[in-house]
Amino acid sequence: MATRSWWGWGTVEAAPGRAEEDELLGRVRALLPDAVLEDHAPPDPRTLDLPRVRVDPPPSLAPLCSSDAVDRAAHTHGKAFRDVVRNLEGLLEHPPDLVVRPTSERDVVDVLDWCSGAGVAVVPYGGGTSVVGGVEPRFEGPAVSLDLGRLDRVLEVDRTSRAARIQAGTPGPLLEAGLRPHGLTLRHFPQSFELSTLGGWLATRAGGHYATLYTHIDDLTESLRVVTPVGVCESRRLPGSGAGPSPDRLFLGSEGTLGVITEAWVRVQDRVRWRATVSVGFEDRDSAVRATRAVAQSGLYPTNCRLLDAAEALLTTGELVGGGVLVVAFESADHPVDPWLARALELTAEHGGRPLQAGTREDAGEEVPTDPAASWRSAFLRMPYHRDVLARHGLVVETFETACTWDRLDAVHESVVAAARDALARVCGGGAVTSRFTHVYADGPAAYYSVYAPGRWGSTVAQWDEVKAAVSEAILVAGATITHHHAVGRDHRPWYDRQRPEPFATALAAARRALDPAGVLNPGVLLPAGGTPQS
Amino acid sequence: MATRSWWGWGTVEAAPGRAEEDELLGRVRALLPDAVLEDHAPPDPRTLDLPRVRVDPPPSLAPLCSSDAVDRAAHTHGKAFRDVVRNLEGLLEHPPDLVVRPTSERDVVDVLDWCSGAGVAVVPYGGGTSVVGGVEPRFEGPAVSLDLGRLDRVLEVDRTSRAARIQAGTPGPLLEAGLRPHGLTLRHFPQSFELSTLGGWLATRAGGHYATLYTHIDDLTESLRVVTPVGVCESRRLPGSGAGPSPDRLFLGSEGTLGVITEAWVRVQDRVRWRATVSVGFEDRDSAVRATRAVAQSGLYPTNCRLLDAAEALLTTGELVGGGVLVVAFESADHPVDPWLARALELTAEHGGRPLQAGTREDAGEEVPTDPAASWRSAFLRMPYHRDVLARHGLVVETFETACTWDRLDAVHESVVAAARDALARVCGGGAVTSRFTHVYADGPAAYYSVYAPGRWGSTVAQWDEVKAAVSEAILVAGATITHHHAVGRDHRPWYDRQRPEPFATALAAARRALDPAGVLNPGVLLPAGGTPQS
Repeated sequence: MATRSWWGWGTVEAAPGRAEEDELLGRVRALLPDAVLEDHAPPDPRTLDLPRVRVDPPPSLAPLCSSDAVDRAAHTHGKAFRDVVRNLEGLLEHPPDLVVRPTSERDVVDVLDWCSGAGVAVVPYGGGTSVVGGVEPRFEGPAVSLDLGRLDRVLEVDRTSRAARIQAGTPGPLLEAGLRPHGLTLRHFPQSFELSTLGGWLATRAGGHYATLYTHIDDLTESLRVVTPVGVCESRRLPGSGAGPSPDRLFLGSEGTLGVITEAWVRVQDRVRWRATVSVGFEDRDSAVRATRAVAQSGLYPTNCRLLDAAEALLTTGELVGGGVLVVAFESADHPVDPWLARALELTAEHGGRPLQAGTREDAGEEVPTDPAASWRSAFLRMPYHRDVLARHGLVVETFETACTWDRLDAVHESVVAAARDALARVCGGGAVTSRFTHVYADGPAAYYSVYAPGRWGSTVAQWDEVKAAVSEAILVAGATITHHHAVGRDHRPWYDRQRPEPFATALAAARRALDPAGVLNPGVLLPAGGTPQS
Repeated sequence: MATRSWWGWGTVEAAPGRAEEDELLGRVRALLPDAVLEDHAPPDPRTLDLPRVRVDPPPSLAPLCSSDAVDRAAHTHGKAFRDVVRNLEGLLEHPPDLVVRPTSERDVVDVLDWCSGAGVAVVPYGGGTSVVGGVEPRFEGPAVSLDLGRLDRVLEVDRTSRAARIQAGTPGPLLEAGLRPHGLTLRHFPQSFELSTLGGWLATRAGGHYATLYTHIDDLTESLRVVTPVGVCESRRLPGSGAGPSPDRLFLGSEGTLGVITEAWVRVQDRVRWRATVSVGFEDRDSAVRATRAVAQSGLYPTNCRLLDAAEALLTTGELVGGGVLVVAFESADHPVDPWLARALELTAEHGGRPLQAGTREDAGEEVPTDPAASWRSAFLRMPYHRDVLARHGLVVETFETACTWDRLDAVHESVVAAARDALARVCGGGAVTSRFTHVYADGPAAYYSVYAPGRWGSTVAQWDEVKAAVSEAILVAGATITHHHAVGRDHRPWYDRQRPEPFATALAAARRALDPAGVLNPGVLLPAGGTPQS
């Protein structure tokens, strides 16, 4: 059994060893020669002197509740840079009073009943990988962290309809392990895949690894079961429906404010058999963007269509190409995808793209190590671990993301990068900003930015917060979204409040008051804790 | 200028002439030899003695208002069989007091202000093609029909992002005419295309002609502008977002109960250049269904994948095939689609399918007359006109539709067909039921049924209502949806109320009360007129 890190990403066992750390720090020294890079080990959570527990569960629920200091510490924050650094600094201002682990939906109902009656806030907790303050009880007043980790089973598989009923607390690897014997897969691979759960994906409208078509978990949702304080809400399993506004779409993205998702029927797929991948280099960014747009609008629906800027291309594929590298891939469980790849190559060539490496093969379940897309994917899953190493060494290292229509892309990109660089120069004396597209749609891309800067230990959270405010303001003003797939949580609230149309805020707050009359569900996420959008 | 029929489908000019009528009635005589087939002409609407007008608009709005009897009569009902027959019978129980035609969004705001203050119900009216009682003021108390037909312009085209800003009252042909000079198309072709409007499609989650992928208007929606009684709600133009529950998805399918959609940015596409079509015959229904499912789950995403049962195949393609005919088509603006069609043919052959006719070509903008898919499409658009001829001749002739997961399909289909046949035998002494799939998803099909039966003139609405209640009950009990793309309106309410999860009803009613405190928006649609789901 692997041990979850209480303060950082993932498991203790999977954390980088000395060699991996040294290699990583060596690369950072080349990038940021002025960085100090002194290691700051996490404190022992038992020494943190957490605030005392203020709630007393009824005897029937007591066996589900933990007031253990390490448990509470591990459930205090999500896993953003600012969370990890606060953990390293021992700054755990608002730990939950208890961690409650239901073993059944009935337990969830009972916890909501108790908390509604006792005025105890309930913060749903899946894999705890929020990077937006979504699982942090950042408010006064008592709170429990409702950890759904014991609801972790694939309950039912419908091979005919290719759908499966799965409990909300099931993390990615367990979910896939439950589907594999049926020859099926959900094919939803967010970067947090190892730890994050189906319920967390649904509650936050998570984005998967695939670049087009079914990018968000929303599209893989057949029906939901949600415990609300006024009753259990179960939608019908339907492949499509036009019966009023979609019930599921109200709960998708509700981030625990309207109810606790306990299980879902999700659309699964046959396991991939054919793959074809190519990486295409460009001399200038404009051509690269035009080529990416052409592929996005072609109706070919690549599974990957990831445009890495020159810096990211160099870091992850080793290729030095001025305009960046577009990684295009196709996959199918049904048929060879060569005609699809051939047409994508024609399109990229029309915009001056030059193939760097290509591979097309019948899949043997292994990644081809020389495939740049594969090396990129592997790096992708290690990134949060590396982020923690750099955070420990006093760097400001974080990502942010957005999406916009193609017509606004240049303006959004330029103002966001300028805002990031200005802020970094101001608060860190400089730093690097890299970017890629993580998803592309016919009408626009989702752009993802990574920031690396030398920080002052003890101030790196404040430094990042200032950079984040600057880029968020740029995103909002330029007409993009404050989040494409990281959710709103508490950290994005100031910009989400301005992005969200006011009548919709009014409707959402009314729905929330109706479903959660006591206002105990994840207060401060999406809506102000008081429940009205203005308060 | 064509003249809209006040009582039936479409325009007076496009109604079938004597030859088309005779041919149609000849076919019906063969199918239903006992039917009487006596013609019943519509009354002159000026002789109908409509209830007096009960409302008095403020002078500023008076120029937008019509109390003309023909106008009121034409806005009393939608265009379901039961609407057309009631018109033919002169039974116009609840005409709107006024027809109001805003010329700007400001007018819409002013009308809602006036109606909210005066307690006058507002029934939004696009093309008036509702088949579920969605535009009928079926309640006591004064009402205006808010006809958005003057908001009919394509306002802006963003060629780069392939999106267009279009007013809600724009009907299909005008919308396509506005996009054509830009080489673009929305490619949303519901059967009502000639008359229905973008706003109507959005408010009812309309389904288009295409069988897979982007079936509903929902997926083509980039952003919405909605006038609510508490303010204008405009969502941001975004290709994708994870910022809280989707604002657009609350208004999509709200059927005029949460606000009046005035315009939208929609995702448009390059015009189709390559097409490939094949019709495949099957000896038995099970094989046909399995083949259709295989294509639906292949990831090929055909634009058409329409399984016609034996009767429909005979009626529309002239082919006599025991297990029905599957029409499969692919289209692209970007590339030849032959590899796609070839793989679909392999899949259908694996299930015993036998190609009847195939065509693959570069499109010249014309239909190939011998193509069975084309003859089917042409018949598709004429069907509502033919329905009116048959309704005038005393037949019970109507359609209904649903969707379910593949695992439930046999049970749903058998119980629905049995319920229809039992009810027809009971109330009409017999009749025919045919079926097809209109849309297919990886996890299930949308099934569409047509009913033809001899009726007793003067009782055909009551006869149909009894059949409809029986099939709706069968649909609900079997776990399918009461509507896949016809919406809920007033006619589907009894079954929608049971299908919809109760906590979602609570949330929706609360949202409605918050956005429409006076409860004037389309009372009785989706929710009880009082605004609470229980009342």
